[in-house]
Amino acid sequence: MPNNKKAVVLLSGGLDSAVTLYFAKKQGYECYCLIFDYGQRHNKEISAAKKIARISGSNFEIVKISLPWKGSSLLDKDLKIPQVTRSPGHQVTGQIPNTYVPARNIIFLSFALSFAEAISARAIFIGAHSEDYSGYPDCRPEFYRAFSKAAKTGTKTGVEGSPIKIVAPLISKNKAQIIKAGTNLGVPFEFTWSCYNGGRAPCGGCDSCYYRAKGFKNLGIEDPLLRNFKR
Amino acid sequence: MPNNKKAVVLLSGGLDSAVTLYFAKKQGYECYCLIFDYGQRHNKEISAAKKIARISGSNFEIVKISLPWKGSSLLDKDLKIPQVTRSPGHQVTGQIPNTYVPARNIIFLSFALSFAEAISARAIFIGAHSEDYSGYPDCRPEFYRAFSKAAKTGTKTGVEGSPIKIVAPLISKNKAQIIKAGTNLGVPFEFTWSCYNGGRAPCGGCDSCYYRAKGFKNLGIEDPLLRNFKR
Repeated sequence: MPNNKKAVVLLSGGLDSAVTLYFAKKQGYECYCLIFDYGQRHNKEISAAKKIARISGSNFEIVKISLPWKGSSLLDKDLKIPQVTRSPGHQVTGQIPNTYVPARNIIFLSFALSFAEAISARAIFIGAHSEDYSGYPDCRPEFYRAFSKAAKTGTKTGVEGSPIKIVAPLISKNKAQIIKAGTNLGVPFEFTWSCYNGGRAPCGGCDSCYYRAKGFKNLGIEDPLLRNFKR
Repeated sequence: MPNNKKAVVLLSGGLDSAVTLYFAKKQGYECYCLIFDYGQRHNKEISAAKKIARISGSNFEIVKISLPWKGSSLLDKDLKIPQVTRSPGHQVTGQIPNTYVPARNIIFLSFALSFAEAISARAIFIGAHSEDYSGYPDCRPEFYRAFSKAAKTGTKTGVEGSPIKIVAPLISKNKAQIIKAGTNLGVPFEFTWSCYNGGRAPCGGCDSCYYRAKGFKNLGIEDPLLRNFKR
């Protein structure tokens, strides 16, 4: 049901951004999802994102960008994705992992801002949360505050007095809380894809699989995605 | 002469960014130019940018991005580029002109930030100045201050204590002062392209042509670009 309250939602195909989309819908926004094709190692995320956008009845745009520089194992197949089960994850070491893509969320938010201005949207929703991925600087509340200020001072809408809000509804939630919220919102978790590797089934060993599994386990519920891979 | 002091320079092919590049070189930076192919109405700017990067002995990368939304006459051929000679420019009306591309400089700076982190550059140079193009919110000092804060809080380098500097050396200069500085730095103005239209010769009537011509006139020197089009 179209209305005049539009939001741009950054949709990756993972669990967090899917919950964020349903959160924005619940708040009455007509959602426009931005899905980035930025040279990921695999395209399972993008297929998942498109499916979720469709199921939720939202509009979406695919934005293709090239980052002709290296430096992240999410883009560079010569680098190994760290396996929590083999070496301590960044939660343990406190270091920024090699899955960090330089300034990725800043790039995504900048496109979202441009799109939001072009379609007169009032808000941008992003599924970042600091608890599980505390290793990523661009998932922290202080970054979102700073980016909001840049968005306010650097855009026509901002200067004219109605800045576009940057909303990160999951920022203070942990994975189990996010899954619980998503369950209540009816998020189709079976179509989300979190694994950094692009195999037929989730690898179960990367940071992303690890925290997803831990979240479902803490809630005492089964991950509906895994049902697809049972014999 | 490669050294360890690297800078990323946003190079558009116009006069301002060319002066900015030479300014960065003068400060001893090894320069890496980022040239954006973002669906401009014509590709004369991109050709000019490549030529200037080569002449200056700098490295460059072309970044192709798609903005699948409309809203600016610089991207949308259905919209008319405003002509200063026919209707008052934004300097007169105080309005943001339709050549404004939503959040364009934020997008460009975000890519520059990602690139700068990937190559361990210390600074990003951008040729924005507020005097001639006061209509563009993302050319104002307050925007650069806010973006610097976002860059500091949202990147690995920033969090680790050595944030990448955002340098806008022309921010307080007018067009004549920029041309004067560029002349002293040996900028090859004959290869820069400012006109918003992509004709064989500059149209002479768009905002960009108008302010360029005014700058040269105020200095009492001839624009070397125009020599190419004399019979």
